[in-house]
Amino acid sequence: MAGRRLQLPLLCLLLQGATAILFAIFVRYDQETDAARWHWGNHSNTDNEFYFRYPSFQDVHAMVFVGFGFLMVFLQRYGYSSLGFTFLLAAFTLQWATLVQGFLRSYRDGHIPVGMESMIDADFCAGALLISLGAVLGRTGPAQLLLMALLEVALFGLNEFVLLCLLEVRDAGGSMTIHTFGAYFGLVLSRVLYKPHLEKSKHRQGSVYHSDLFAMIGTMFLWIFWPSFNSALTSRGAGQPRTALNTYYSLTASTLSTFALSALVEEDGRLDMVHVQNAALAGGVVVGTASEMMLTPFGALAAGCLAGAVSTLGYKFFTPILESKFKIQDTCGVHNLHGMPGVLGALLGALVTGLATHDAYGDGLQTVFPLIAEGQRSATSQAVYQLFGLFVTLAFASAGGGLVGFLLRLPYLDAPSDSQCYEDQIYWEVPEVHDKVQEALRMEEADSQA
Amino acid sequence: MAGRRLQLPLLCLLLQGATAILFAIFVRYDQETDAARWHWGNHSNTDNEFYFRYPSFQDVHAMVFVGFGFLMVFLQRYGYSSLGFTFLLAAFTLQWATLVQGFLRSYRDGHIPVGMESMIDADFCAGALLISLGAVLGRTGPAQLLLMALLEVALFGLNEFVLLCLLEVRDAGGSMTIHTFGAYFGLVLSRVLYKPHLEKSKHRQGSVYHSDLFAMIGTMFLWIFWPSFNSALTSRGAGQPRTALNTYYSLTASTLSTFALSALVEEDGRLDMVHVQNAALAGGVVVGTASEMMLTPFGALAAGCLAGAVSTLGYKFFTPILESKFKIQDTCGVHNLHGMPGVLGALLGALVTGLATHDAYGDGLQTVFPLIAEGQRSATSQAVYQLFGLFVTLAFASAGGGLVGFLLRLPYLDAPSDSQCYEDQIYWEVPEVHDKVQEALRMEEADSQA
Amino acid sequence: MAGRRLQLPLLCLLLQGATAILFAIFVRYDQETDAARWHWGNHSNTDNEFYFRYPSFQDVHAMVFVGFGFLMVFLQRYGYSSLGFTFLLAAFTLQWATLVQGFLRSYRDGHIPVGMESMIDADFCAGALLISLGAVLGRTGPAQLLLMALLEVALFGLNEFVLLCLLEVRDAGGSMTIHTFGAYFGLVLSRVLYKPHLEKSKHRQGSVYHSDLFAMIGTMFLWIFWPSFNSALTSRGAGQPRTALNTYYSLTASTLSTFALSALVEEDGRLDMVHVQNAALAGGVVVGTASEMMLTPFGALAAGCLAGAVSTLGYKFFTPILESKFKIQDTCGVHNLHGMPGVLGALLGALVTGLATHDAYGDGLQTVFPLIAEGQRSATSQAVYQLFGLFVTLAFASAGGGLVGFLLRLPYLDAPSDSQCYEDQIYWEVPEVHDKVQEALRMEEADSQA
Repeated sequence: MAGRRLQLPLLCLLLQGATAILFAIFVRYDQETDAARWHWGNHSNTDNEFYFRYPSFQDVHAMVFVGFGFLMVFLQRYGYSSLGFTFLLAAFTLQWATLVQGFLRSYRDGHIPVGMESMIDADFCAGALLISLGAVLGRTGPAQLLLMALLEVALFGLNEFVLLCLLEVRDAGGSMTIHTFGAYFGLVLSRVLYKPHLEKSKHRQGSVYHSDLFAMIGTMFLWIFWPSFNSALTSRGAGQPRTALNTYYSLTASTLSTFALSALVEEDGRLDMVHVQNAALAGGVVVGTASEMMLTPFGALAAGCLAGAVSTLGYKFFTPILESKFKIQDTCGVHNLHGMPGVLGALLGALVTGLATHDAYGDGLQTVFPLIAEGQRSATSQAVYQLFGLFVTLAFASAGGGLVGFLLRLPYLDAPSDSQCYEDQIYWEVPEVHDKVQEALRMEEADSQA
Repeated sequence: MAGRRLQLPLLCLLLQGATAILFAIFVRYDQETDAARWHWGNHSNTDNEFYFRYPSFQDVHAMVFVGFGFLMVFLQRYGYSSLGFTFLLAAFTLQWATLVQGFLRSYRDGHIPVGMESMIDADFCAGALLISLGAVLGRTGPAQLLLMALLEVALFGLNEFVLLCLLEVRDAGGSMTIHTFGAYFGLVLSRVLYKPHLEKSKHRQGSVYHSDLFAMIGTMFLWIFWPSFNSALTSRGAGQPRTALNTYYSLTASTLSTFALSALVEEDGRLDMVHVQNAALAGGVVVGTASEMMLTPFGALAAGCLAGAVSTLGYKFFTPILESKFKIQDTCGVHNLHGMPGVLGALLGALVTGLATHDAYGDGLQTVFPLIAEGQRSATSQAVYQLFGLFVTLAFASAGGGLVGFLLRLPYLDAPSDSQCYEDQIYWEVPEVHDKVQEALRMEEADSQA
Repeated sequence: MAGRRLQLPLLCLLLQGATAILFAIFVRYDQETDAARWHWGNHSNTDNEFYFRYPSFQDVHAMVFVGFGFLMVFLQRYGYSSLGFTFLLAAFTLQWATLVQGFLRSYRDGHIPVGMESMIDADFCAGALLISLGAVLGRTGPAQLLLMALLEVALFGLNEFVLLCLLEVRDAGGSMTIHTFGAYFGLVLSRVLYKPHLEKSKHRQGSVYHSDLFAMIGTMFLWIFWPSFNSALTSRGAGQPRTALNTYYSLTASTLSTFALSALVEEDGRLDMVHVQNAALAGGVVVGTASEMMLTPFGALAAGCLAGAVSTLGYKFFTPILESKFKIQDTCGVHNLHGMPGVLGALLGALVTGLATHDAYGDGLQTVFPLIAEGQRSATSQAVYQLFGLFVTLAFASAGGGLVGFLLRLPYLDAPSDSQCYEDQIYWEVPEVHDKVQEALRMEEADSQA
């Protein structure tokens, strides 16, 4: 017990110490943030580049942490953990992703340069981590999650490097690198960590009225700032506003189709809050790759509409099958919000890529598809690369999730027992009000030991 | 019953299908978002134009949906609906407003160009819709609300077109086009939908402690982002910072006068949360027209102070009269927050317009009052146009609200009965916790049928 | 009783009237907001200056009011007051700080010019006020708080003027001017207002499950927007992105060390929500002075790590001693979040200043340390000035807090009795749900009079 008590503190300090040492050795301000290397002569370029990135950075930062953090508060007795572990993962991931992404993508002369762009990159990586967290939420302890982050960030970075730098695939809003990767990593991980007697914690798995309202804070933030998320790292010029616009319309369409399907599939025509909280957002995922391209406003509506419908049907019909037949427990339904819409988004991206012409993009072809503009690839060949990128992502995510799953099953880690899932009191001091819960838990535990 | 069950899904799909087809035919990327038409030569203009609009767009987006959405969560059993219907209306309105505003204001060569500016325009229209929703909240079903949106958006667009394009009235922050229109449309609509036995739902009409805290999320967002809302579509140059500044000070003054009046009118000197949640925001409404102008910082304080006082007194004394004498039920008190302050804002705008001189505005006259600068109108004549704009708005809003009211009274629509108002369970699956409520509702319904 | 009832309204109206008159006489639009003085020829300077400031302004505005406002909602029965008094203080402070800071820092030709920069300045001042509020929250009435604001703003402005304009100390994110000043002012004030029988209100001093989740909204906003807060008024060029980056990493490190220490110091290894809500933010405070400088990313991590640890240990061990030995009651633990980390931040700032060289800063030395660049001070001498700035701040804060404390002890003011602390019903109409609380309160009051 004393060992378990020390596990989280020691792990935190160890990881913080290690990243701090690596920061001291390798990480340096980039041209934008280094007082000595900034030149006012660059005014019209560098300076504006900063204006260009800064508001996007704050929007992404708000969306990822407020958005994913509060979306997970829907669980009635797991709000402290949902928000607290979001912070914990964020804190470690942002440091560690800076190092991993830096080594793979911008390491030069013995140093990793950091600035606004690397901060947005790290935020994106944290987004993928929080998606994976959504799959195993309530069935994993904080020390397990830190170990997951240690490995998942490395794999995320590797996959992203292969896609963006080796295959030169386009994926500005991360349908593949963020959503597909995060979701399938988490789902395979969840499969390996399968809890056979989870029905003992079933009564805590749902929401209560107020916890659903808290979750809607997350939904709102995701819905509002998704245009900035998808466009944060697009090329300057028409790229960013077009990406924002496509995302904006795609989300409106996924919201309408979610309401339609939600009322349709429930027996008495009532709406389901879970669908609105989640499936309404599928429009942001499905255009993660294609929103940067000349998708057309109609294309954005059609894609969003489809994604909302698929996601809602997923929640209603597929999640129960996933659990009963495939033994994959998926707390937040990330398969419906990030998995299927992410794969659809990758396919849509490949399709729109294959249709790219010089006429449609004009000079903008250079910024969206530089290899096509330079004649190194045809549109069709770039589309095949896009599809290959999806395949690579699924492979990395599945292998990684499986591997990490076996690691997290190590004894001595802080996994909750089957009867203690979805319960804050395992990891947090909770105000007296929950005394009765504590009693009930003690009895449950006694039961499960008997 | 089966028909009613299919009503919402079919309406959603029908409207989504129709707007999607219209998007396919008419809507195209504008110069800013079209890869082929963006020119780097335009760098110092177009490019900066985008920097200029983008942060404003995200602020407005956050303010309208988080702000109005959560402000309506004060009702104790209507949080799912308040937030859910906000999403539903937003999703349809943003698409439909793009079409309506596009046809009226920017249609050219068979196409409607869309970009950051049209997105802000559509968000503004959604703001007016949510204000109208505030008047009838809890007494209308989602299918009714979609029909309302279908017609109200068209009328909003028409009124806006008449004011901004035909009368060439100035109304950057929408005291007339958004607040006055939205409020009086909703109030007349509410009059037509008058529910005589609403006392049967009275016990659900108030707030509980936690629902008031959720509502304060909305208040906070509105208060904070109102400077961006009023200034989002002002002219470049001094216009945007001045508008933001006037709004900032006006809100501080309306907050102070709200606290003063709230403590004064309550019998025991206690403060009323409803006043703080709403009347404190009246300062943003009252400078919706004039904040763009040379109102002076003192003028902003005086206007805000007046608006906060009028709004607080409205909640205390006028809302009860509105219901008892005029049979106008006003769930959120939009008459106090948007109606009266909107009319005051239009009058203030006319006054400040009438005082405009070349000396006071210098070169800036061209951007704020182009017709005066070009000598086509005198300041007085522009002021008369402003007043006429208010009159037109009141006429459009009242006629429209009445018309739509009669449509929404059609049988077969999903209006709740007088005893089922302000209750989420009519339209939503609600977690078990509310089982007792469900029972009580069943009994109520039995009662009301007896 | 009638007098007490009129106290708050009259004070609000009096203060609003007085500031309005002063605004009329002195406050004028600055070059950026005045239509007549804006020149398009300045385009590349003034215009960009506005783009530069505007998103920062909205981020700061959101952080200060949503952040500090909701962070204080952790008290179970004081949510209305926490949010309401935040609004009340904000409303008056923003007006009054404009005047005080304007007179001291930008008064010229009989006028105070206002624009984006003065709005950010006033927001910063409001931040300090809300920190002081955190120390005395629940034990002071709204009229007392308005009087506190009247005097504290004046002292804040004076201290800021001495530091920034006379001593020419660097303090972009306000480790000294905002955090140290706000915290020690509030703590000394709390000492003077010491309530000996506070155990009578002890049962209301803690949180409940939902109030903790509301508080996490505040934590999230502070954590997310702190990079913008610290960088809002830094010099253009590399200064702003570097400041944001240092703050970003410092916060990740303080979060990790908070989790480590929180689990370590609790008997059973559980985490404490109070630590996560507060100590995780200490990384933002500790780099308030140094984040603008060439702290290096490693330096940011080390500083954040230390601050999180000190803050967590403060909550666990120091706050109880502060109350029992020093008779300083500190509702929100501002000594741990703002006091100690603020002092550490000032010391860190002095250290990094002392290490400044021409090599490290290059041309950027002019913007960060103009006096060193111009040869008027050596780095060591500037460091000594920085230390002196800390000393001055502590002196102003302590003397000011003491002075204001004696004023607030005046009879007739609206202080709650020892048994009525941390209770909304003293100042607010609260929905029926709390009827039992009201009864209990009545009994308590009867008890305390007996």
